[in-house]
Amino acid sequence: MVFLLYVQLLLGLSGSHSQSGEGHGLKTEAQFTEKYFSQTLDHFNFNSMGNGTFSQRYLITDQYWEKGHGPIFFYTGNEGDIWEFALNSGFITELAAQQKALVIFAEHRYYGRSLPFGNNSFSIPQISLLTVEQALADYVVMITELKQQLEATLSPVIVFGGSYGGMLSVYMRLKYPNKVAGALAASAPILSTAGLGDPQQFFRDVTADFEGITPKCRDAVRGAFHQLKELAEHQGYSRIQSEFALCKPPTSAKDIQQLYGLLRNAFTLMAMLDYPYSTHFMGNMPANPVKVYTCHNRQVLSYQLQRFISIILVLLLLLLWLQACTEINLCYESNNVTDMFPPITFTEKERELYCSKRWGVLPRPGWLKAQFWGDALSTASNIIFSNGDLDPWANGGVRKSLSSSLIAINIPGGAHHLDLRGSDDADPESVIKARKTEADIIAHWVQMERTRLQSI
Amino acid sequence: MVFLLYVQLLLGLSGSHSQSGEGHGLKTEAQFTEKYFSQTLDHFNFNSMGNGTFSQRYLITDQYWEKGHGPIFFYTGNEGDIWEFALNSGFITELAAQQKALVIFAEHRYYGRSLPFGNNSFSIPQISLLTVEQALADYVVMITELKQQLEATLSPVIVFGGSYGGMLSVYMRLKYPNKVAGALAASAPILSTAGLGDPQQFFRDVTADFEGITPKCRDAVRGAFHQLKELAEHQGYSRIQSEFALCKPPTSAKDIQQLYGLLRNAFTLMAMLDYPYSTHFMGNMPANPVKVYTCHNRQVLSYQLQRFISIILVLLLLLLWLQACTEINLCYESNNVTDMFPPITFTEKERELYCSKRWGVLPRPGWLKAQFWGDALSTASNIIFSNGDLDPWANGGVRKSLSSSLIAINIPGGAHHLDLRGSDDADPESVIKARKTEADIIAHWVQMERTRLQSI
Repeated sequence: MVFLLYVQLLLGLSGSHSQSGEGHGLKTEAQFTEKYFSQTLDHFNFNSMGNGTFSQRYLITDQYWEKGHGPIFFYTGNEGDIWEFALNSGFITELAAQQKALVIFAEHRYYGRSLPFGNNSFSIPQISLLTVEQALADYVVMITELKQQLEATLSPVIVFGGSYGGMLSVYMRLKYPNKVAGALAASAPILSTAGLGDPQQFFRDVTADFEGITPKCRDAVRGAFHQLKELAEHQGYSRIQSEFALCKPPTSAKDIQQLYGLLRNAFTLMAMLDYPYSTHFMGNMPANPVKVYTCHNRQVLSYQLQRFISIILVLLLLLLWLQACTEINLCYESNNVTDMFPPITFTEKERELYCSKRWGVLPRPGWLKAQFWGDALSTASNIIFSNGDLDPWANGGVRKSLSSSLIAINIPGGAHHLDLRGSDDADPESVIKARKTEADIIAHWVQMERTRLQSI
Repeated sequence: MVFLLYVQLLLGLSGSHSQSGEGHGLKTEAQFTEKYFSQTLDHFNFNSMGNGTFSQRYLITDQYWEKGHGPIFFYTGNEGDIWEFALNSGFITELAAQQKALVIFAEHRYYGRSLPFGNNSFSIPQISLLTVEQALADYVVMITELKQQLEATLSPVIVFGGSYGGMLSVYMRLKYPNKVAGALAASAPILSTAGLGDPQQFFRDVTADFEGITPKCRDAVRGAFHQLKELAEHQGYSRIQSEFALCKPPTSAKDIQQLYGLLRNAFTLMAMLDYPYSTHFMGNMPANPVKVYTCHNRQVLSYQLQRFISIILVLLLLLLWLQACTEINLCYESNNVTDMFPPITFTEKERELYCSKRWGVLPRPGWLKAQFWGDALSTASNIIFSNGDLDPWANGGVRKSLSSSLIAINIPGGAHHLDLRGSDDADPESVIKARKTEADIIAHWVQMERTRLQSI
């Protein structure tokens, strides 16, 4: 409880974002215009609430577009302010400059400023229109109408997304290939979130990143957690308070468990955002954070917490995420055997308890797999699944090509959707090569789709 | 109003169905067991109403099934009592006997006995869970769970459907190819219901069936409508009452307009159900009804009404169909120029007025096309679109093969989904050949899918 309160004091920070975004090596600075689209509230219910509309935000730039002919690059926004994604996905605008594309970043309903019921959006039952299916329907309606408005009916549409946004890009291509010619899904854990694979994979892979620097780093983290545990067991609560600069001391084993969770998240974020240059995405991060911030032995934990409190905040919000209570399976666990973290379970049973208490919903663990095909992707086409091998989400996604048009791209030394970021002088060769491959494939999809559209 | 009241007196009939079904030439008499499945009420909303379940009826027979290995033939039920479809789709069980398949006929929510809210199902907002998307999700959830229960995870699933049920079969393959290896969509007007094509096509094609017997037949119908019009214009309302055995005389031009609509439906049904032998599907129909019931000059109209009152009833229920007010476009019009009927418009504007008044909903004319791909089907596979050329719905569907696995089959002399019916001595050669082709294609799909399932 105490940690939650502490974090809530900082809530004011969560809405802010750096307008400068990538900055450093950015070759192309797109001038986005912020607009709003009148969107259907409920695509799957024609009565009551569903009859209304809400204002869905999107960012658009036509500065590179060959009007009416060039393709449309459409970012399927994920769980956050759309500016965050636009400012940290410079590859899309760089590619637009090359391929004369219109660029649209669409904000996901219930995030940023796209709140269907304003400040009441997060109440029950208003929250109930936050689903993957509604978000996808938003995007297909927006694409259809904007193509009409912009006289772009002959412009092929390619969707892009990172992480959950990448999952949405995949789903758009699976469910709406009539509207979307191809998808670049960067770091999209479509398998693990469908409940496929090993629940230990995620934190094992976080651990592997630290171990990759030196095994000593991993041991340092494990040792620090051990010390924290010993302190807690001997009721050293005030010592913990001062070490971590908490506004109140922890008072129970449950508080300690929450502290473990927060700290685990901090290390996880370092692994996810282990870019070779400093970034301003989900908080401020130096270059190579895994290397920079670890191996300080027993100081390592308090150091993390003070540095990353704003990051933790963001992740905490994600973890409160209703969507993990309905469709998206995030039942990852740590056990201190296959990973360096304290044992923290998150079983289906615990999930059910939390979700029914917090949101009045029961998760449907099999739904995402049935709805979005799980690993039965053989009939799909024109999807790139890119993953960096530093990213703990990577092994929850597609790592091997499934056909000539379901293409896995691996980026050695790459963190979470590094390929979507704008080019930078510090980029490893691997990501430069990956982007080149992606550009070529996308140009080919655009050409094929243009032929199809012109033949109708 | 008067006609509606008259028809409502007969409402008791609508629930009845002939357990004998096809009967005559039926080679295989399947022994279906009636069961109920605990189905999710709202697949797209996890709060409130959506947390519940309802009992969805299905019919099942494993008498031909090679348990755990043979395929599953799954009928995606449409707008009616599921027994009606099971008893009039003998081809599916005949094919099951050949291919050792399990057969399931699933009832569509809100029809037959699959009423999500019992007798309150048709109130607002309870009715709002009647959508195509919910129906498809029902089927995918049912397939997934029944495969588990029946230890049939390696059994390929083929979906079958006629008319709107055929549309659902197509959509299942488009949206859930992970679960469904192929679809036989008989007489499925997937293009016209998506708003594609010519609104005059439907009644023009009904007219063509009558003209096909002899042009005199068409002229007789047109002449009879003309006489009715003259009577109405001279206020011959009591004469109209006695001619058509109405319980009250019509009292306004609006009543007459409704009578036109009912009569037009009667002729339409004759064309749709113009089978070469007598049937008991949507009422009792003699063999070759178009030929038998027309060419009686001025008696033709009253004759029809008395004969087909129970049929009209069923169609009237269809026309009240909420689904035509939300997703499914049925804006067909007659004009007495390209067809033999009085001019009856049904514009988008009229549709909006009726739907908002009757059901509190506004139609979304572009939705079905965006959601289920319209004519942009090139990425789909493993669908048979079969159509008979007597069927006025045929030209609202796919008449030419789009690829080697999107196969159009034309059945000369065939009425509405004749190929789904059990074999009969009176069958034309065309339908015997069509069924043979369908059987071969389905056997091939089953074989391919079995290989895929076994390789996982």
